[in-house]
Amino acid sequence: MTKGEQTRRYIVRKSAPLFNQKGYEGTSLSDLMEATGLQKGGIYRHFSGKEELATEAFDYSWGKAVSGRLDGVAEVPDCVNRLKKMIENFVQLRAGLVPGGCPLMNTAVEADDGNAALRARAKKALQNWTVRLSKITTEGIKKQQIDHHIDPLKLSQLIIGSLEGALLISRLQNSDEPLRAIKQHLSEYLEQNVRTTIRSNR
Amino acid sequence: MTKGEQTRRYIVRKSAPLFNQKGYEGTSLSDLMEATGLQKGGIYRHFSGKEELATEAFDYSWGKAVSGRLDGVAEVPDCVNRLKKMIENFVQLRAGLVPGGCPLMNTAVEADDGNAALRARAKKALQNWTVRLSKITTEGIKKQQIDHHIDPLKLSQLIIGSLEGALLISRLQNSDEPLRAIKQHLSEYLEQNVRTTIRSNR
Repeated sequence: MTKGEQTRRYIVRKSAPLFNQKGYEGTSLSDLMEATGLQKGGIYRHFSGKEELATEAFDYSWGKAVSGRLDGVAEVPDCVNRLKKMIENFVQLRAGLVPGGCPLMNTAVEADDGNAALRARAKKALQNWTVRLSKITTEGIKKQQIDHHIDPLKLSQLIIGSLEGALLISRLQNSDEPLRAIKQHLSEYLEQNVRTTIRSNR
Repeated sequence: MTKGEQTRRYIVRKSAPLFNQKGYEGTSLSDLMEATGLQKGGIYRHFSGKEELATEAFDYSWGKAVSGRLDGVAEVPDCVNRLKKMIENFVQLRAGLVPGGCPLMNTAVEADDGNAALRARAKKALQNWTVRLSKITTEGIKKQQIDHHIDPLKLSQLIIGSLEGALLISRLQNSDEPLRAIKQHLSEYLEQNVRTTIRSNR
């Protein structure tokens, strides 16, 4: 890695918590200078502008969130349990994330009437996460672990939406209770309505 | 109403869509001047500053959202159906709202690491909404329409979180599908797990 590339990554890493906490509009040049210890020219030599830096910072923050949420998921053999593991990770693995809550929620909310490049990143992030969960469900249907009436896309959106909404409330109330409650609700739903009762393949 | 009070309300009404779409940080003085047709002095004669204007704009936007969501709810006799009516309103009554999505979500996400006054308003708004739903549930338990094992606070948070999360996804994907799916999911949950099977009082 060249020195320029190292500095570029350093700037992204240092600015990611700012954008995730204060938002795109709320992050000022002086915030960025303070966080990186660099002057304006030292920062923007590496990026075409604030938008490029913010989109890379989003990708960095989102990457950390995804890797935490998917940690150990692929190793779980049963597909319903795999979905439950992802839910558990979302609820419990709050450490190791970039401060400021879920980058997808933060960016989606700020950019839905605003910056098109950031909105596109958030949309793509949501799409990728949805596809990952859908694939688990599709595999589960194929293996007869998941009821064949279940729509993989709808189930993915239900899980993602419920988790994000519970996180919103948990953060506003400074309490993990809404997150723990949604985990329990989704677990019961997965066991009662999603898991197939024919388990010929297990 | 004095002329000053009229102007004050006019400014709040005109600036509410800006704050709800662009956020507190993203709304500039020139945006406010353009939307109101007033100069800086004409705006800030009526408010102690941007924070006071933004908190009043939040209350205005939130008031519209709440009245839409609760429209016709009190008239529904059965408590489970009352909760379902609120969910239906949330999903379907998108017209008449201040543009920019749910003011509670927007303000909570921007203010959770930022402006304390706005965060406090969002927190209070969530609390009031939660209490309203909890009261319906408590009444339903008393009238034996709702199972007495149900925790009114948890159920309220589950409904609110699920709706807000589905709205986040719907807005990002420009599709009502996630909102319609959560409505169906919550309806089934309310009928299967929340409604009491003993209906001696109906």
